Amino acid sequence: MARVLTGIKPTGRLHLGNLEGAVRSWLGLMAEHELYCLVANWHAYTTVPATPRLAREAAEAIRQHTNDVAIDLIAVGLDPARATLFRQSDVKEHAELYLLLSMVTPVAWLTRVPTYKDLVASGKGAMASHGLLGYPVLQAADILLYRATIVPVGSDQLPHIELAREIARRFRHLYGEVFPEPEAKRGSSAVVPGIDGRKMSKSYDNAIYLADGPDVVAAKVRGAFTTPSKIHPTDPGVPEECSVCQLRRIYDPDGYSASWEADRRGERGCMQNKEELIEILEAVLAPIRRRRRELERDPAEVERVLADGAVRAREAARATIEDVRSAMRLT
Amino acid sequence: MARVLTGIKPTGRLHLGNLEGAVRSWLGLMAEHELYCLVANWHAYTTVPATPRLAREAAEAIRQHTNDVAIDLIAVGLDPARATLFRQSDVKEHAELYLLLSMVTPVAWLTRVPTYKDLVASGKGAMASHGLLGYPVLQAADILLYRATIVPVGSDQLPHIELAREIARRFRHLYGEVFPEPEAKRGSSAVVPGIDGRKMSKSYDNAIYLADGPDVVAAKVRGAFTTPSKIHPTDPGVPEECSVCQLRRIYDPDGYSASWEADRRGERGCMQNKEELIEILEAVLAPIRRRRRELERDPAEVERVLADGAVRAREAARATIEDVRSAMRLT
Repeated sequence: MARVLTGIKPTGRLHLGNLEGAVRSWLGLMAEHELYCLVANWHAYTTVPATPRLAREAAEAIRQHTNDVAIDLIAVGLDPARATLFRQSDVKEHAELYLLLSMVTPVAWLTRVPTYKDLVASGKGAMASHGLLGYPVLQAADILLYRATIVPVGSDQLPHIELAREIARRFRHLYGEVFPEPEAKRGSSAVVPGIDGRKMSKSYDNAIYLADGPDVVAAKVRGAFTTPSKIHPTDPGVPEECSVCQLRRIYDPDGYSASWEADRRGERGCMQNKEELIEILEAVLAPIRRRRRELERDPAEVERVLADGAVRAREAARATIEDVRSAMRLT
Repeated sequence: MARVLTGIKPTGRLHLGNLEGAVRSWLGLMAEHELYCLVANWHAYTTVPATPRLAREAAEAIRQHTNDVAIDLIAVGLDPARATLFRQSDVKEHAELYLLLSMVTPVAWLTRVPTYKDLVASGKGAMASHGLLGYPVLQAADILLYRATIVPVGSDQLPHIELAREIARRFRHLYGEVFPEPEAKRGSSAVVPGIDGRKMSKSYDNAIYLADGPDVVAAKVRGAFTTPSKIHPTDPGVPEECSVCQLRRIYDPDGYSASWEADRRGERGCMQNKEELIEILEAVLAPIRRRRRELERDPAEVERVLADGAVRAREAARATIEDVRSAMRLT
């Protein structure tokens, strides 16, 4: 049984893209491993807001999204009895380890991280915060604090995990063995299409959220992007180019191929595809939505789960920090 | 009654230069204000050590000096019943506020701090640590965590205090009033000469330490730099150029002028000046040394003082952090 650290920055509610691209694999890991799942709310502050209004709106949104994400995760099956679900800001040891790892991390390692380099190249580097530059250090602290050996990530996060490994190696070199080197575990490479055919993403405004009601989901699917060359119901479709067919493949893995073939032969219209997908999605989303609603009605229960997770996370974190402090002669 | 934050990086034992240039003024402030005195051991890690041996030696030295500095401070009169004397690393809220202030501090503010600029200009910037770049942010956290309004500093620290004020203003602008703006209070501008005539400094190896025994002090004074043009006892001295006369002025403010005048007239030799200074210093150092020895023999008492200080510091720190978290919607 290995220790797994997963994390999510609370920038919005979860959508199907998050679920299939990341969270689904966590649920699989939960069954076999000791899973720590961090709602990384401190990470959400790394962009310096330009005005008081934006700063306060952003802070309020982070608070709200932290709660939403926790609810979403529990609703899709993250079992707080099996996994440790917690808020980063509830465990001060993340900040302590961030500070201590800061001391062994050269600035030069951070300025060459692709996301930071891109920012500087775009001319926006001048107002980048010290916290943004230190983002990968905080992420390394998140991982190393739990001595996690498996870190499920998307490909955009690979450079950060590589840096966490470098920091772990440097710490070991200087002060001795405290942290194992974490291994990145690439999640599913299947891209979940949004309703406009591009990758599903909050920033494209093309996402189906776990919290969307049945009418909202239906309306989104009915307005979704389908085969551009299919004008009439009898025109042949190209399922590979149709977001509705793509979503069906994900949520109807056993049954989708017959519908795809019929679509290719022009035997079914896009409306039929859409109505069927609505039903298929509803079967997935209805129980999640039900669980979400229960949790939304019981904020004390969500708070209890997070508080309980924080207690367990702190216990693990403190054990590590004790070893770090001892290695650095801070005790 | 204002709140005062003083701090000292544990890089070595205290010498007369530290005492007269900084600590003496803290003792004065202690009488009138609420004084927090921080042994800034985390700050001592900002330089990335190059090898495991150096890293471990440095860490061990920081641990030792943290203890020594605490003993020195108590021995010279810092009264733990009146002032709160504590180790930075005992109060995790320093790390938490460092992280949160990191988020509102642009990298550009930090790269223009003179000490950092000098480092980069000297070609050593590449291996500067993220912690070193963030040194002024940690210092700002140290000050703002106690909502100190008075910060006694040497002139080399003025840019750091200015930055702490800037960070406090930015935080207020974005999230509201939590921190008062700290005011730097320049200490005595009197430079304490070392035994080689230059400013007394650990790095010049010209210092008289509070922990030096009587024989060591006597030997240092006997070997001290005096008026270069005074070869024979009857040659006229130039007290302004003589480290022995300078030290006498500090430690014999009422009596020094007669000896200076005699020196100018060539009526006394350097040996006489030195033997008299040894006696004068001994009157100052003997009680300090006695108190030091008591404390060295009773490490549990020193630990108790620091632990008790940490309890009080944490109480003040937590009250501030609660307000910070509330302003940033982190509660």
